[in-house]
Amino acid sequence: MTIRSITSRDNPQYKELRRLADNAQARRKAGQSLLDGVHLCDTWLRQTGMPLLCVVGESALANPEVSGIVQRCEQGDARVVALPDALFHPLSQVEHGVDLLFVVETPVPAAPSALTQSSVLLDRVQDPGNLGSILRSAAAAGVKQVFCSAGTVQAWSPRVLRAGMGAHFVLEIFENAELAPLVASAAIPVIATSSHTEQSLYQLDLSAPVAWLFGHEGQGVDEALLAAATHRVAIPHLGEVESLNVAASAAVCFFEQVRQTLAR
Amino acid sequence: MTIRSITSRDNPQYKELRRLADNAQARRKAGQSLLDGVHLCDTWLRQTGMPLLCVVGESALANPEVSGIVQRCEQGDARVVALPDALFHPLSQVEHGVDLLFVVETPVPAAPSALTQSSVLLDRVQDPGNLGSILRSAAAAGVKQVFCSAGTVQAWSPRVLRAGMGAHFVLEIFENAELAPLVASAAIPVIATSSHTEQSLYQLDLSAPVAWLFGHEGQGVDEALLAAATHRVAIPHLGEVESLNVAASAAVCFFEQVRQTLAR
Repeated sequence: MTIRSITSRDNPQYKELRRLADNAQARRKAGQSLLDGVHLCDTWLRQTGMPLLCVVGESALANPEVSGIVQRCEQGDARVVALPDALFHPLSQVEHGVDLLFVVETPVPAAPSALTQSSVLLDRVQDPGNLGSILRSAAAAGVKQVFCSAGTVQAWSPRVLRAGMGAHFVLEIFENAELAPLVASAAIPVIATSSHTEQSLYQLDLSAPVAWLFGHEGQGVDEALLAAATHRVAIPHLGEVESLNVAASAAVCFFEQVRQTLAR
Repeated sequence: MTIRSITSRDNPQYKELRRLADNAQARRKAGQSLLDGVHLCDTWLRQTGMPLLCVVGESALANPEVSGIVQRCEQGDARVVALPDALFHPLSQVEHGVDLLFVVETPVPAAPSALTQSSVLLDRVQDPGNLGSILRSAAAAGVKQVFCSAGTVQAWSPRVLRAGMGAHFVLEIFENAELAPLVASAAIPVIATSSHTEQSLYQLDLSAPVAWLFGHEGQGVDEALLAAATHRVAIPHLGEVESLNVAASAAVCFFEQVRQTLAR
Protein backbone atom coordinates (compact mmCIF):
# COMPACT_ATOMS: atom_id res chain seq x y z
CA MET A 1 0.00 0.00 0.00
CA THR A 2 1.30 3.47 -0.77
CA ILE A 3 0.77 6.83 0.86
CA ARG A 4 -1.59 9.02 -1.07
CA SER A 5 -0.81 12.75 -1.28
CA ILE A 6 -3.37 15.53 -1.18
CA THR A 7 -2.07 18.85 -2.41
CA SER A 8 -5.17 20.97 -2.93
CA ARG A 9 -7.39 22.72 -0.40
CA ASP A 10 -10.27 21.93 -2.72
CA ASN A 11 -9.82 18.19 -2.49
CA PRO A 12 -13.14 16.81 -1.13
CA GLN A 13 -11.42 14.54 1.41
CA TYR A 14 -9.38 17.49 2.71
CA LYS A 15 -12.52 19.61 2.98
CA GLU A 16 -14.13 16.83 5.01
CA LEU A 17 -11.06 16.73 7.31
CA ARG A 18 -11.36 20.48 7.87
CA ARG A 19 -15.00 20.07 8.80
CA LEU A 20 -14.15 17.34 11.30
CA ALA A 21 -11.37 19.44 12.82
CA ASP A 22 -13.45 22.59 13.17
CA ASN A 23 -16.90 21.42 14.00
CA ALA A 24 -18.19 19.35 16.92
CA GLN A 25 -21.49 18.86 15.10
CA ALA A 26 -19.76 17.43 12.03
CA ARG A 27 -17.80 14.99 14.20
CA ARG A 28 -20.95 13.88 15.97
CA LYS A 29 -22.86 13.43 12.71
CA ALA A 30 -20.03 11.44 11.13
CA GLY A 31 -19.43 9.43 14.32
CA GLN A 32 -15.75 10.22 13.91
CA SER A 33 -13.05 11.83 16.04
CA LEU A 34 -9.58 13.23 15.38
CA LEU A 35 -6.62 12.06 17.45
CA ASP A 36 -3.89 14.66 17.31
CA GLY A 37 -0.22 13.82 17.86
CA VAL A 38 2.03 10.84 18.39
CA HIS A 39 0.95 9.94 21.93
CA LEU A 40 -2.77 9.59 21.17
CA CYS A 41 -2.23 7.80 17.84
CA ASP A 42 0.27 5.36 19.30
CA THR A 43 -2.01 4.63 22.27
CA TRP A 44 -4.97 4.06 19.94
CA LEU A 45 -2.97 1.59 17.83
CA ARG A 46 -1.89 -0.36 20.90
CA GLN A 47 -5.21 -0.32 22.72
CA THR A 48 -7.89 -0.23 20.05
CA GLY A 49 -6.58 -1.00 16.57
CA MET A 50 -6.46 0.65 13.17
CA PRO A 51 -7.72 4.16 12.45
CA LEU A 52 -10.12 4.91 9.59
CA LEU A 53 -7.44 7.21 8.20
CA CYS A 54 -3.92 8.25 9.13
CA VAL A 55 -3.02 11.84 8.16
CA VAL A 56 0.58 12.96 8.20
CA GLY A 57 2.33 16.25 7.43
CA GLU A 58 5.00 15.76 4.78
CA SER A 59 7.91 16.94 6.87
CA ALA A 60 6.84 14.76 9.81
CA LEU A 61 7.51 11.64 7.72
CA ALA A 62 11.19 12.07 8.57
CA ASN A 63 10.37 11.62 12.28
CA PRO A 64 11.08 7.97 13.24
CA GLU A 65 8.14 7.77 15.67
CA VAL A 66 5.80 9.03 12.95
CA SER A 67 7.19 6.76 10.25
CA GLY A 68 6.86 3.79 12.63
CA ILE A 69 3.19 4.60 13.18
CA VAL A 70 2.60 5.13 9.44
CA GLN A 71 4.21 1.76 8.77
CA ARG A 72 1.96 -0.01 11.27
CA CYS A 73 -1.06 1.64 9.59
CA GLU A 74 0.06 0.43 6.18
CA GLN A 75 0.65 -3.09 7.50
CA GLY A 76 -2.84 -3.01 9.01
CA ASP A 77 -4.35 -1.87 5.71
CA ALA A 78 -5.38 1.53 7.08
CA ARG A 79 -5.41 4.37 4.58
CA VAL A 80 -2.65 6.96 4.90
CA VAL A 81 -2.65 10.42 3.35
CA ALA A 82 0.22 12.92 3.36
CA LEU A 83 -0.40 16.66 3.33
CA PRO A 84 1.92 19.60 2.75
CA ASP A 85 2.59 21.18 6.16
CA ALA A 86 0.53 24.26 5.26
CA LEU A 87 -2.51 22.03 4.70
CA PHE A 88 -1.88 19.99 7.84
CA HIS A 89 -1.68 22.87 10.31
CA PRO A 90 -5.33 24.01 10.11
CA LEU A 91 -6.34 20.47 11.15
CA SER A 92 -4.37 20.55 14.39
CA GLN A 93 -4.81 22.24 17.77
CA VAL A 94 -1.19 21.65 18.66
CA GLU A 95 1.09 24.57 17.93
CA HIS A 96 4.54 23.03 17.95
CA GLY A 97 3.54 19.40 17.70
CA VAL A 98 4.43 16.60 15.33
CA ASP A 99 2.11 16.60 12.34
CA LEU A 100 0.28 13.33 12.72
CA LEU A 101 -3.36 12.60 13.27
CA PHE A 102 -5.79 9.74 13.09
CA VAL A 103 -9.41 9.82 12.06
CA VAL A 104 -11.13 7.14 14.12
CA GLU A 105 -14.63 5.87 14.62
CA THR A 106 -15.85 7.41 17.90
CA PRO A 107 -16.52 4.51 20.27
CA VAL A 108 -20.15 4.39 21.37
CA PRO A 109 -20.49 1.97 24.28
CA ALA A 110 -23.89 0.51 25.10
CA ALA A 111 -25.31 2.61 27.92
CA PRO A 112 -26.14 0.67 31.08
CA SER A 113 -29.69 0.98 32.35
CA ALA A 114 -28.53 1.80 35.87
CA LEU A 115 -25.44 2.86 37.83
CA THR A 116 -23.92 -0.28 39.31
CA GLN A 117 -20.17 0.38 39.24
CA SER A 118 -17.86 3.24 40.17
CA SER A 119 -18.62 6.05 37.80
CA VAL A 120 -18.61 9.80 37.24
CA LEU A 121 -21.57 11.99 36.33
CA LEU A 122 -20.74 15.38 34.85
CA ASP A 123 -23.35 18.11 34.81
CA ARG A 124 -22.47 20.84 32.26
CA VAL A 125 -18.68 20.87 32.71
CA GLN A 126 -17.54 23.58 30.30
CA ASP A 127 -13.78 23.61 30.03
CA PRO A 128 -12.07 21.09 27.71
CA GLY A 129 -8.97 21.01 29.93
CA ASN A 130 -11.08 20.24 32.98
CA LEU A 131 -13.00 17.46 31.25
CA GLY A 132 -9.77 15.92 29.90
CA SER A 133 -8.16 16.05 33.33
CA ILE A 134 -11.24 14.45 34.96
CA LEU A 135 -11.19 11.62 32.40
CA ARG A 136 -7.45 11.08 32.96
CA SER A 137 -7.86 11.01 36.75
CA ALA A 138 -10.84 8.65 36.49
CA ALA A 139 -8.91 6.24 34.28
CA ALA A 140 -5.95 6.32 36.68
CA ALA A 141 -8.19 5.71 39.68
CA GLY A 142 -9.95 2.75 38.07
CA VAL A 143 -13.29 4.51 37.59
CA LYS A 144 -14.60 3.13 34.27
CA GLN A 145 -17.86 4.83 33.36
CA VAL A 146 -18.36 8.53 32.64
CA PHE A 147 -21.77 10.08 31.95
CA CYS A 148 -21.74 13.57 30.43
CA SER A 149 -24.94 15.66 30.43
CA ALA A 150 -26.03 17.65 27.44
CA GLY A 151 -24.29 20.99 27.94
CA THR A 152 -21.01 19.33 28.88
CA VAL A 153 -18.23 20.05 26.38
CA GLN A 154 -17.88 17.32 23.73
CA ALA A 155 -15.71 14.58 25.25
CA TRP A 156 -14.23 13.48 21.92
CA SER A 157 -13.19 17.00 20.87
CA PRO A 158 -9.51 17.47 20.02
CA ARG A 159 -8.77 19.58 23.11
CA VAL A 160 -10.43 17.16 25.52
CA LEU A 161 -8.69 14.22 23.84
CA ARG A 162 -5.38 15.99 24.19
CA ALA A 163 -5.89 16.70 27.90
CA GLY A 164 -7.14 13.14 28.42
CA MET A 165 -3.83 11.68 27.23
CA GLY A 166 -5.42 8.39 26.15
CA ALA A 167 -7.87 8.03 29.05
CA HIS A 168 -10.74 8.04 26.53
CA PHE A 169 -9.62 4.69 25.16
CA VAL A 170 -9.95 2.81 28.45
CA LEU A 171 -13.18 4.46 29.65
CA GLU A 172 -16.81 4.05 28.68
CA ILE A 173 -17.97 7.59 27.93
CA PHE A 174 -21.67 8.28 27.51
CA GLU A 175 -22.42 11.71 26.05
CA ASN A 176 -25.76 13.54 26.21
CA ALA A 177 -26.68 11.36 29.16
CA GLU A 178 -29.83 12.08 31.15
CA LEU A 179 -28.42 12.37 34.65
CA ALA A 180 -31.65 12.70 36.66
CA PRO A 181 -33.03 9.19 35.93
CA LEU A 182 -29.55 7.69 36.45
CA VAL A 183 -29.32 9.31 39.88
CA ALA A 184 -32.89 8.30 40.77
CA SER A 185 -32.37 4.65 39.84
CA ALA A 186 -28.77 4.24 41.02
CA ALA A 187 -27.93 0.92 42.68
CA ILE A 188 -24.92 2.55 44.40
CA PRO A 189 -24.54 5.75 46.44
CA VAL A 190 -24.35 8.95 44.39
CA ILE A 191 -21.97 11.48 45.97
CA ALA A 192 -22.09 15.12 44.94
CA THR A 193 -19.54 17.71 46.00
CA SER A 194 -20.91 20.94 47.35
CA SER A 195 -19.44 23.72 49.44
CA HIS A 196 -22.75 24.15 51.25
CA THR A 197 -22.61 21.09 53.49
CA GLU A 198 -21.02 20.05 56.76
CA GLN A 199 -20.43 16.45 55.67
CA SER A 200 -16.73 15.88 55.00
CA LEU A 201 -15.45 13.71 52.15
CA TYR A 202 -13.14 12.07 54.66
CA GLN A 203 -16.03 10.83 56.81
CA LEU A 204 -17.45 8.73 53.95
CA ASP A 205 -16.88 5.02 53.59
CA LEU A 206 -15.65 4.68 50.01
CA SER A 207 -14.68 1.04 50.09
CA ALA A 208 -17.62 -0.02 47.87
CA PRO A 209 -18.41 1.44 44.42
CA VAL A 210 -19.90 4.94 44.28
CA ALA A 211 -20.99 7.37 41.56
CA TRP A 212 -19.40 10.83 41.76
CA LEU A 213 -21.39 13.85 40.61
CA PHE A 214 -19.59 17.07 39.60
CA GLY A 215 -21.03 20.21 38.07
CA HIS A 216 -20.56 23.39 36.11
CA GLU A 217 -17.40 25.40 36.88
CA GLY A 218 -19.29 28.47 38.04
CA GLN A 219 -22.68 27.16 39.15
CA GLY A 220 -21.83 23.72 40.50
CA VAL A 221 -24.25 20.81 40.30
CA ASP A 222 -27.85 21.56 39.29
CA GLU A 223 -29.98 21.98 42.43
CA ALA A 224 -32.47 19.20 41.70
CA LEU A 225 -29.64 16.75 40.95
CA LEU A 226 -27.80 17.84 44.08
CA ALA A 227 -30.91 17.21 46.17
CA ALA A 228 -31.39 13.79 44.57
CA ALA A 229 -27.83 12.62 45.35
CA THR A 230 -27.36 10.14 48.21
CA HIS A 231 -24.67 12.29 49.88
CA ARG A 232 -23.56 15.89 49.53
CA VAL A 233 -20.00 16.26 50.72
CA ALA A 234 -17.44 19.04 51.02
CA ILE A 235 -13.69 18.71 50.68
CA PRO A 236 -12.46 20.24 53.95
CA HIS A 237 -10.17 23.24 53.50
CA LEU A 238 -7.46 24.74 55.66
CA GLY A 239 -6.90 27.92 53.67
CA GLU A 240 -8.60 31.20 52.97
CA VAL A 241 -9.76 30.17 49.50
CA GLU A 242 -12.99 28.21 49.68
CA SER A 243 -13.35 26.46 46.38
CA LEU A 244 -11.40 24.14 44.13
CA ASN A 245 -11.24 23.77 40.40
CA VAL A 246 -13.69 20.99 39.39
CA ALA A 247 -10.91 18.77 37.99
CA ALA A 248 -8.89 19.23 41.19
CA SER A 249 -11.99 18.31 43.25
CA ALA A 250 -12.53 15.22 41.15
CA ALA A 251 -8.92 14.11 41.59
CA VAL A 252 -9.15 14.53 45.37
CA CYS A 253 -12.38 12.49 45.48
CA PHE A 254 -11.22 9.70 43.16
CA PHE A 255 -7.93 9.25 45.02
CA GLU A 256 -9.54 9.30 48.45
CA GLN A 257 -11.48 6.32 47.09
CA VAL A 258 -8.20 4.74 45.88
CA ARG A 259 -6.59 5.36 49.28
CA GLN A 260 -9.49 3.75 51.16
CA THR A 261 -9.57 0.82 48.73
CA LEU A 262 -5.83 0.18 49.16
CA ALA A 263 -6.07 0.58 52.95
CA ARG A 264 -8.62 -2.23 53.27
CA MET B 1 -13.90 62.28 41.21
CA THR B 2 -15.20 61.59 37.71
CA ILE B 3 -14.68 58.78 35.27
CA ARG B 4 -12.33 59.72 32.47
CA SER B 5 -13.13 58.45 28.96
CA ILE B 6 -10.59 57.28 26.44
CA THR B 7 -11.94 57.09 22.91
CA SER B 8 -8.86 56.77 20.71
CA ARG B 9 -6.61 53.79 20.11
CA ASP B 10 -3.74 56.26 19.88
CA ASN B 11 -4.18 57.51 23.42
CA PRO B 12 -0.84 56.83 25.20
CA GLN B 13 -2.50 55.35 28.29
CA TYR B 14 -4.55 52.99 26.10
CA LYS B 15 -1.42 51.93 24.24
CA GLU B 16 0.23 51.17 27.57
CA LEU B 17 -2.81 49.07 28.61
CA ARG B 18 -2.52 47.08 25.37
CA ARG B 19 1.15 46.42 26.07
CA LEU B 20 0.33 45.19 29.59
CA ALA B 21 -2.44 42.94 28.27
CA ASP B 22 -0.37 41.40 25.48
CA ASN B 23 3.11 41.12 26.86
CA ALA B 24 4.44 39.27 29.90
CA GLN B 25 7.73 41.18 29.62
CA ALA B 26 5.95 44.55 29.74
CA ARG B 27 4.02 43.48 32.84
CA ARG B 28 7.19 42.31 34.54
CA LYS B 29 9.06 45.51 33.67
CA ALA B 30 6.21 47.73 34.90
CA GLY B 31 5.68 45.57 37.99
CA GLN B 32 1.98 45.62 37.13
CA SER B 33 -0.70 43.01 36.52
CA LEU B 34 -4.18 43.03 35.01
CA LEU B 35 -7.10 41.56 36.92
CA ASP B 36 -9.84 40.63 34.49
CA GLY B 37 -13.49 40.41 35.51
CA VAL B 38 -15.73 41.09 38.49
CA HIS B 39 -14.60 38.19 40.69
CA LEU B 40 -10.89 39.07 40.70
CA CYS B 41 -11.47 42.82 41.01
CA ASP B 42 -13.93 42.42 43.86
CA THR B 43 -11.61 40.00 45.67
CA TRP B 44 -8.68 42.39 45.26
CA LEU B 45 -10.71 45.29 46.71
CA ARG B 46 -11.73 43.21 49.71
CA GLN B 47 -8.39 41.58 50.39
CA THR B 48 -5.74 44.01 49.22
CA GLY B 49 -7.10 47.48 48.57
CA MET B 50 -7.27 49.97 45.73
CA PRO B 51 -6.03 49.27 42.18
CA LEU B 52 -3.67 51.61 40.36
CA LEU B 53 -6.37 51.98 37.73
CA CYS B 54 -9.89 50.67 37.17
CA VAL B 55 -10.81 50.15 33.50
CA VAL B 56 -14.43 49.64 32.52
CA GLY B 57 -16.21 49.03 29.21
CA GLU B 58 -18.90 51.63 28.64
CA SER B 59 -21.80 49.20 28.39
CA ALA B 60 -20.66 47.39 31.55
CA LEU B 61 -21.35 50.53 33.58
CA ALA B 62 -25.03 49.53 33.55
CA ASN B 63 -24.15 46.31 35.43
CA PRO B 64 -24.84 46.87 39.17
CA GLU B 65 -21.86 44.74 40.27
CA VAL B 66 -19.57 46.76 38.04
CA SER B 67 -20.98 50.13 39.07
CA GLY B 68 -20.60 49.10 42.72
CA ILE B 69 -16.92 48.33 42.17
CA VAL B 70 -16.40 51.55 40.20
CA GLN B 71 -18.00 53.49 43.05
CA ARG B 72 -15.71 51.89 45.64
CA CYS B 73 -12.73 52.83 43.44
CA GLU B 74 -13.90 56.44 43.23
CA GLN B 75 -14.45 56.60 47.00
CA GLY B 76 -10.95 55.21 47.47
CA ASP B 77 -9.47 57.81 45.13
CA ALA B 78 -8.43 55.23 42.54
CA ARG B 79 -8.44 56.40 38.94
CA VAL B 80 -11.21 55.07 36.70
CA VAL B 81 -11.25 55.14 32.92
CA ALA B 82 -14.12 54.10 30.66
CA LEU B 83 -13.52 52.67 27.19
CA PRO B 84 -15.86 52.03 24.28
CA ASP B 85 -16.49 48.25 24.18
CA ALA B 86 -14.44 47.90 20.98
CA LEU B 87 -11.41 49.30 22.77
CA PHE B 88 -11.98 47.22 25.89
CA HIS B 89 -12.17 43.82 24.20
CA PRO B 90 -8.52 43.58 23.05
CA LEU B 91 -7.49 44.02 26.71
CA SER B 92 -9.42 40.99 27.92
CA GLN B 93 -8.96 37.23 27.70
CA VAL B 94 -12.56 36.63 28.62
CA GLU B 95 -14.89 36.11 25.68
CA HIS B 96 -18.33 36.68 27.15
CA GLY B 97 -17.31 38.34 30.35
CA VAL B 98 -18.20 41.60 32.02
CA ASP B 99 -15.92 44.37 30.81
CA LEU B 100 -14.07 45.34 33.97
CA LEU B 101 -10.41 45.15 34.81
CA PHE B 102 -7.98 46.47 37.35
CA VAL B 103 -4.37 47.41 36.82
CA VAL B 104 -2.62 46.59 40.10
CA GLU B 105 0.90 46.65 41.43
CA THR B 106 2.15 43.06 41.30
CA PRO B 107 2.86 42.01 44.89
CA VAL B 108 6.51 41.08 45.39
CA PRO B 109 6.91 39.36 48.76
CA ALA B 110 10.33 39.19 50.39
CA ALA B 111 11.77 35.80 49.55
CA PRO B 112 12.65 33.64 52.56
CA SER B 113 16.22 32.38 52.74
CA ALA B 114 15.09 28.81 53.36
CA LEU B 115 12.02 26.58 53.20
CA THR B 116 10.53 26.44 56.68
CA GLN B 117 6.78 26.21 56.08
CA SER B 118 4.46 24.21 53.84
CA SER B 119 5.19 25.30 50.31
CA VAL B 120 5.14 24.34 46.64
CA LEU B 121 8.08 24.35 44.24
CA LEU B 122 7.21 24.37 40.54
CA ASP B 123 9.79 23.35 37.99
CA ARG B 124 8.87 24.61 34.50
CA VAL B 125 5.09 24.17 34.69
CA GLN B 126 3.89 25.30 31.25
CA ASP B 127 0.14 25.51 31.16
CA PRO B 128 -1.59 28.62 32.58
CA GLY B 129 -4.66 26.59 33.56
CA ASN B 130 -2.51 24.10 35.45
CA LEU B 131 -0.60 26.79 37.32
CA GLY B 132 -3.81 28.62 38.23
CA SER B 133 -5.39 25.39 39.47
CA ILE B 134 -2.29 24.56 41.55
CA LEU B 135 -2.35 28.02 43.15
CA ARG B 136 -6.06 27.68 43.91
CA SER B 137 -5.61 24.23 45.46
CA ALA B 138 -2.62 25.42 47.50
CA ALA B 139 -4.56 28.39 48.85
CA ALA B 140 -7.50 26.12 49.76
CA ALA B 141 -5.21 23.62 51.48
CA GLY B 142 -3.45 26.28 53.56
CA VAL B 143 -0.13 26.06 51.70
CA LYS B 144 1.14 29.66 51.64
CA GLN B 145 4.40 29.87 49.70
CA VAL B 146 4.84 29.08 46.01
CA PHE B 147 8.23 29.13 44.28
CA CYS B 148 8.17 29.15 40.47
CA SER B 149 11.34 28.36 38.53
CA ALA B 150 12.41 30.34 35.50
CA GLY B 151 10.64 28.55 32.65
CA THR B 152 7.38 28.31 34.58
CA VAL B 153 4.56 30.30 32.97
CA GLN B 154 4.19 33.81 34.45
CA ALA B 155 2.07 33.47 37.58
CA TRP B 156 0.55 36.95 37.30
CA SER B 157 -0.52 36.53 33.65
CA PRO B 158 -4.22 37.10 32.93
CA ARG B 159 -4.93 33.43 32.20
CA VAL B 160 -3.23 32.17 35.37
CA LEU B 161 -4.97 34.85 37.42
CA ARG B 162 -8.28 33.81 35.96
CA ALA B 163 -7.73 30.12 36.76
CA GLY B 164 -6.44 31.04 40.23
CA MET B 165 -9.77 32.69 41.15
CA GLY B 166 -8.17 34.98 43.73
CA ALA B 167 -5.67 32.49 45.17
CA HIS B 168 -2.84 34.83 44.14
CA PHE B 169 -3.97 37.39 46.69
CA VAL B 170 -3.58 35.09 49.71
CA LEU B 171 -0.34 33.37 48.64
CA GLU B 172 3.27 34.46 48.60
CA ILE B 173 4.40 33.77 45.03
CA PHE B 174 8.10 33.92 44.20
CA GLU B 175 8.82 33.92 40.46
CA ASN B 176 12.14 33.09 38.81
CA ALA B 177 13.12 31.23 41.97
CA GLU B 178 16.29 29.14 42.03
CA LEU B 179 14.90 25.81 43.18
CA ALA B 180 18.15 23.84 43.64
CA PRO B 181 19.53 25.90 46.56
CA LEU B 182 16.08 25.98 48.18
CA VAL B 183 15.87 22.19 48.03
CA ALA B 184 19.46 21.79 49.27
CA SER B 185 18.96 24.09 52.28
CA ALA B 186 15.37 23.12 53.14
CA ALA B 187 14.59 22.90 56.85
CA ILE B 188 11.59 20.65 56.07
CA PRO B 189 11.20 17.51 53.91
CA VAL B 190 10.95 18.13 50.17
CA ILE B 191 8.58 15.67 48.49
CA ALA B 192 8.67 15.19 44.73
CA THR B 193 6.09 13.19 42.80
CA SER B 194 7.48 10.69 40.33
CA SER B 195 5.99 7.67 38.61
CA HIS B 196 9.34 5.85 38.91
CA THR B 197 9.24 4.99 42.58
CA GLU B 198 7.67 2.39 44.86
CA GLN B 199 7.11 4.80 47.73
CA SER B 200 3.42 5.61 48.06
CA LEU B 201 2.11 9.06 48.94
CA TYR B 202 -0.15 7.38 51.46
CA GLN B 203 2.76 5.91 53.43
CA LEU B 204 4.16 9.37 54.21
CA ASP B 205 3.63 11.16 57.48
CA LEU B 206 2.36 14.56 56.38
CA SER B 207 1.41 15.92 59.79
CA ALA B 208 4.33 18.39 59.87
CA PRO B 209 5.08 21.02 57.16
CA VAL B 210 6.54 19.79 53.86
CA ALA B 211 7.58 21.34 50.56
CA TRP B 212 5.97 19.79 47.45
CA LEU B 213 7.93 19.68 44.21
CA PHE B 214 6.09 19.33 40.87
CA GLY B 215 7.50 19.50 37.36
CA HIS B 216 7.00 20.07 33.67
CA GLU B 217 3.81 18.54 32.16
CA GLY B 218 5.72 16.27 29.79
CA GLN B 219 9.12 15.81 31.38
CA GLY B 220 8.31 15.89 35.09
CA VAL B 221 10.74 17.24 37.66
CA ASP B 222 14.33 17.91 36.53
CA GLU B 223 16.48 14.88 37.37
CA ALA B 224 18.97 16.65 39.61
CA LEU B 225 16.16 18.29 41.59
CA LEU B 226 14.35 14.96 41.84
CA ALA B 227 17.48 13.31 43.21
CA ALA B 228 17.97 16.12 45.73
CA ALA B 229 14.44 15.84 47.14
CA THR B 230 14.01 14.18 50.54
CA HIS B 231 11.33 11.79 49.26
CA ARG B 232 10.19 10.70 45.81
CA VAL B 233 6.63 9.43 45.98
CA ALA B 234 4.07 8.03 43.57
CA ILE B 235 0.31 8.44 43.78
CA PRO B 236 -0.89 4.82 43.68
CA HIS B 237 -3.20 4.03 40.76
CA LEU B 238 -5.89 1.43 40.27
CA GLY B 239 -6.51 2.00 36.58
CA GLU B 240 -4.83 1.40 33.26
CA VAL B 241 -3.70 4.98 32.84
CA GLU B 242 -0.47 5.62 34.65
CA SER B 243 -0.12 9.35 34.98
CA LEU B 244 -2.09 12.30 36.24
CA ASN B 245 -2.27 15.89 35.12
CA VAL B 246 0.15 17.93 37.26
CA ALA B 247 -2.61 20.07 38.78
CA ALA B 248 -4.60 16.92 39.62
CA SER B 249 -1.48 15.41 41.25
CA ALA B 250 -0.92 18.56 43.26
CA ALA B 251 -4.52 18.57 44.49
CA VAL B 252 -4.26 14.93 45.59
CA CYS B 253 -1.01 15.66 47.48
CA PHE B 254 -2.18 18.88 49.14
CA PHE B 255 -5.44 17.31 50.31
CA GLU B 256 -3.80 14.15 51.60
CA GLN B 257 -1.84 16.60 53.78
CA VAL B 258 -5.12 18.29 54.80
CA ARG B 259 -6.69 14.91 55.58
CA GLN B 260 -3.78 13.84 57.77
CA THR B 261 -3.70 17.23 59.50
CA LEU B 262 -7.42 17.06 60.30
CA ALA B 263 -7.13 13.42 61.43
CA ARG B 264 -4.58 14.25 64.12
